[in-house]
Amino acid sequence: THIMHLSNFLPCYLFRSGSSSSLSFRSHTCGQLRSEHIGEKVTLCGWVQYLSRQDLFVILRDFSGLTQVLIPQQEVSVPHDSRGSHQTHFIQLPWRVKRRPLPSSMKSRGDVEVLAEDVEVFNVCQKLPFEIKDFVKKSESLRMQFRYLDLRSSSLQKNLRLRSQLVMRMREYLSRLLIFPTPRLGAKEFVVPSRDPGRFYSLPQSPQQFKQLLMVAGIDRYFQIARCYRDEGSKPDRQPEFTQVDIEMSFVDQAGIMSLVEGLLEYSWPAEKGPLPLPFPCVTYEEAMRDYGVDKPDTRFGMKLTDLRDVFLSTDIGFFKSAVSKAGSSVLAICVPRGAVRANFFLLGEQDHFLFLLEVSLVLVREDGTLKSPLKKLLSGPATDAVLRKTAAEPGDLLLIAAGPIEVLRPMLGSLRLQCAELLESHGLTVRDSSAFHFLWVVDFPLFLPKKDEPEQLESAHHPFTAPAPEDTALLYTQPEKVRGQHYDLVLNGCEIGGGSVRIHKASEQLHVLKNILKEDPTVLSHLLEALDSGAPPHAGIALGLDRLVSIMVGASSIRDVIAFPKSFRGHDLMSRAPDFVSDEELKSYHISVKWPAETGGPDRKCGDLEQR
Amino acid sequence: THIMHLSNFLPCYLFRSGSSSSLSFRSHTCGQLRSEHIGEKVTLCGWVQYLSRQDLFVILRDFSGLTQVLIPQQEVSVPHDSRGSHQTHFIQLPWRVKRRPLPSSMKSRGDVEVLAEDVEVFNVCQKLPFEIKDFVKKSESLRMQFRYLDLRSSSLQKNLRLRSQLVMRMREYLSRLLIFPTPRLGAKEFVVPSRDPGRFYSLPQSPQQFKQLLMVAGIDRYFQIARCYRDEGSKPDRQPEFTQVDIEMSFVDQAGIMSLVEGLLEYSWPAEKGPLPLPFPCVTYEEAMRDYGVDKPDTRFGMKLTDLRDVFLSTDIGFFKSAVSKAGSSVLAICVPRGAVRANFFLLGEQDHFLFLLEVSLVLVREDGTLKSPLKKLLSGPATDAVLRKTAAEPGDLLLIAAGPIEVLRPMLGSLRLQCAELLESHGLTVRDSSAFHFLWVVDFPLFLPKKDEPEQLESAHHPFTAPAPEDTALLYTQPEKVRGQHYDLVLNGCEIGGGSVRIHKASEQLHVLKNILKEDPTVLSHLLEALDSGAPPHAGIALGLDRLVSIMVGASSIRDVIAFPKSFRGHDLMSRAPDFVSDEELKSYHISVKWPAETGGPDRKCGDLEQR
Repeated sequence: THIMHLSNFLPCYLFRSGSSSSLSFRSHTCGQLRSEHIGEKVTLCGWVQYLSRQDLFVILRDFSGLTQVLIPQQEVSVPHDSRGSHQTHFIQLPWRVKRRPLPSSMKSRGDVEVLAEDVEVFNVCQKLPFEIKDFVKKSESLRMQFRYLDLRSSSLQKNLRLRSQLVMRMREYLSRLLIFPTPRLGAKEFVVPSRDPGRFYSLPQSPQQFKQLLMVAGIDRYFQIARCYRDEGSKPDRQPEFTQVDIEMSFVDQAGIMSLVEGLLEYSWPAEKGPLPLPFPCVTYEEAMRDYGVDKPDTRFGMKLTDLRDVFLSTDIGFFKSAVSKAGSSVLAICVPRGAVRANFFLLGEQDHFLFLLEVSLVLVREDGTLKSPLKKLLSGPATDAVLRKTAAEPGDLLLIAAGPIEVLRPMLGSLRLQCAELLESHGLTVRDSSAFHFLWVVDFPLFLPKKDEPEQLESAHHPFTAPAPEDTALLYTQPEKVRGQHYDLVLNGCEIGGGSVRIHKASEQLHVLKNILKEDPTVLSHLLEALDSGAPPHAGIALGLDRLVSIMVGASSIRDVIAFPKSFRGHDLMSRAPDFVSDEELKSYHISVKWPAETGGPDRKCGDLEQR
Repeated sequence: THIMHLSNFLPCYLFRSGSSSSLSFRSHTCGQLRSEHIGEKVTLCGWVQYLSRQDLFVILRDFSGLTQVLIPQQEVSVPHDSRGSHQTHFIQLPWRVKRRPLPSSMKSRGDVEVLAEDVEVFNVCQKLPFEIKDFVKKSESLRMQFRYLDLRSSSLQKNLRLRSQLVMRMREYLSRLLIFPTPRLGAKEFVVPSRDPGRFYSLPQSPQQFKQLLMVAGIDRYFQIARCYRDEGSKPDRQPEFTQVDIEMSFVDQAGIMSLVEGLLEYSWPAEKGPLPLPFPCVTYEEAMRDYGVDKPDTRFGMKLTDLRDVFLSTDIGFFKSAVSKAGSSVLAICVPRGAVRANFFLLGEQDHFLFLLEVSLVLVREDGTLKSPLKKLLSGPATDAVLRKTAAEPGDLLLIAAGPIEVLRPMLGSLRLQCAELLESHGLTVRDSSAFHFLWVVDFPLFLPKKDEPEQLESAHHPFTAPAPEDTALLYTQPEKVRGQHYDLVLNGCEIGGGSVRIHKASEQLHVLKNILKEDPTVLSHLLEALDSGAPPHAGIALGLDRLVSIMVGASSIRDVIAFPKSFRGHDLMSRAPDFVSDEELKSYHISVKWPAETGGPDRKCGDLEQR
């Protein structure tokens, strides 16, 4: 027999009977048939998964599963051109379910088969650009260009259905608690030319201001599964169009929003992913930086940063001693645990050069408890004991130790900690449980940070609408750099999947932040300031990144695997070829013209097409 | 006492108690308190609706209703600046519910009042740009500029809450039936410049092609409450951003989609609007044009078009006789019924000139059955009887009669029919029941229509993806102008609120339509043609205009009254001033520049600002 591979999910047959209780031509789905249907007349629709050599039977597939259909040779002849690996068809055949022996390999097809009475071919299938069975080896750009074939893979179908179910559950939960779902600031927003000369709309990066204005309008509570747009073409795995669960409430504080989100995730979490223990753990920004060197720690594994300041204060190792004697500097270590043994040599070998550049010292704890390290000779017995005790290092563990200003050290060791985990996993060790979901709240962020290029000037750590912590409000007028904000991030397995804040609801405070601290022109936000001055209630909100949440939930390596029609890495739609050139005629109606960069010189339709077919 | 008007919905008080079972500061809403709460400690949050002269009591308002709060004079003093018509505040006061006599005028406030223990003022309110009680007289642009105050009106709040509930019910219904919710062609799409020189994204006018591709991908069924964009700045009461309920299914026909939509609307229809009788009536395009002169008839009232061809064939009235003797021409009439009596003179008077221009003859049936009309002398007794019999005209009715080619006559009389209804209603007569909801399906549209400026060339009546009626498929290759499409429109009270079609699922047929009939370049749609050629199932779908549906449901005069943050008539956001000017810096990163029209000459920030403050 000529066997089409199981993943060759191609043509479409319709099996039609008299009964049509459902909206569709079909009376049942392929995956639905069970022994209780024996004797019934049913109609199936689907694609030919496999057609036997003498047209004896066909395996029909739809989104729900497979069914074997016997073709009575005297009554029906399958049209000749429905044969062949890709020349396949829709057929229609009324038929009866018949019991058949169940081969163990065919469990998913149920314990019934169907006897066809009639077949209708709905469509034919031309040669496909790639074999779907080999699909994982296809280039990303081919997958994107033929996304409708890519989407036939069972894993993508599963991802999207899970996403759909999750969103439904979220809506269910939110619509019980909150009552009102509905409908610019800063860079990174797409602009949309209007027919008014020189005037542009912008696409919402988030409904931030509008949801605050809804609170001022007395709407009380709002949620929306909002489509948002962000122009970040250059960053990898960011989508110009993304989806967030957007929430805002009046008369609520940080604890209220946090417990709403916990309840929401508990309610909508897929049962097969196991229960979520509530409440989620909560750390401050300072604790996260101290222990993990990052504000979105992956708490599925240890290797926390350990401060060895006290130990090296009493040693004579010049570099370390001078570091710990400076204010704001210290010596920090991470301990790569026992499991690392097999990877040690690799770490000590190939990574050596890299670590040397970062000025990281390596200390291997041998199985007999002695150290192997350039530092060994410099460390006294008591100092060695203290290092091992503080870092809880065991035989077989590896210590990475570095000295310097903590605002440099922490992020560096935080990043090394993640690289070590990846390295160990690439050598087959399990560091992070891929089926574990570690949610974590991070709170007490600084409200302002020094600007990178102008450190004497402050900028908002998140956005200028975040309210200061109540106990820090007075500092806003004296030492704004010390103010903590009422901002909260939700982290899952080391990824930020949500963030929100209590908002400033007093016009005078908002004006002070914009004008005196951020040195921004408050007239740009005059409508918000006016709104706050018309009796704005205290309010707070949050936005959860739905694409990222779902991708972690299903273990997808990219958010593109949980979006039906994503853009490519470079923000292109390779299937419909967006962004594309636009006629001068059309640009004229928007009063704009293209300014071709010198190196391209003009509308050469091939330039810049790195990703194209 | 100084009384603030009930609609002066301004400041915000918080009444806090120990209990905080809810997520918010409040333990109950103002509208929630009943006699069973007497004796409980509760916390309320809201705005001051009314503050009595000696601070004896305050009427507190939130989104749910009103509650009267007594202020014990010895214990709490309301801050002095909380007085005054607009100088109002948030206050916090723990308190007890106390029974009070219920004045008949205060039913909505329940039969309890609250004794305050403590008050916290959360915010103050500056003088508002308009008194909310006078709000209906404010200009549209002021309402739009201060939308957050406009939204405090109870009617807008009611509209938006009803919209929210409707959408929830729709999702509920669709998610039981359909499983999968997710995510360019032609003009009227907004373009979005990208960072690739000369390349533009476009904003979806609808997810038409993507939902078809989902069907090709084997997703089977899809729905989405989709935000869509259409650049129609010049058309009144169209929003550049709008919302549609978007549905697509595989293996389904026209009847399947129609019964899905009927079930959806029955399920999600608000109970207080009365039941919807199912199935909805269905007329063909030809019947709609014949009887109502329009493809979206308002069937809440009669005044149907009557064909008087047979009557005027036998008269000697030259103009009418010559009309009826020509192919494709006729004499048509509408009968404005008895109720019109009071308006007759107006119709015969002021409208006379207008009707004369349209070459419409007027015939008034006097109370004694005789006619008053310039036609009277020309009509024989039997012809008069035939006219009255055919039009079912009664004493007091008014007939409008016109002759000419039916493709001109029908739309003209169809439009006159609606104008007559408006005219009669403006004189206080009830023609259309404003609480009635008449849904109607219109089917069997022509698939192609002659282009207005090139009548020998055909264009799609709806879009080029609509499949021909099965019995007309052969005509596609011989007489395409005679082909009916499998398109269906859903009409409510004379407005098109939805439209959809069975789609072409065969690549060869789609190519024929694009290339041979529409004379379009098929390479623009090569990805769709390729997709159809990879085993596309038969599929069909529909999109319902949510904004329009809700606006008819709540009786709003504009869809702006059912959208939280609509754009103005001219597509402007008067509150956040979009569209706005963009810096040259920003335009440079998109490789575009503004071409100022000669009459404006440059970026004068005042030109074109007709709608501005």
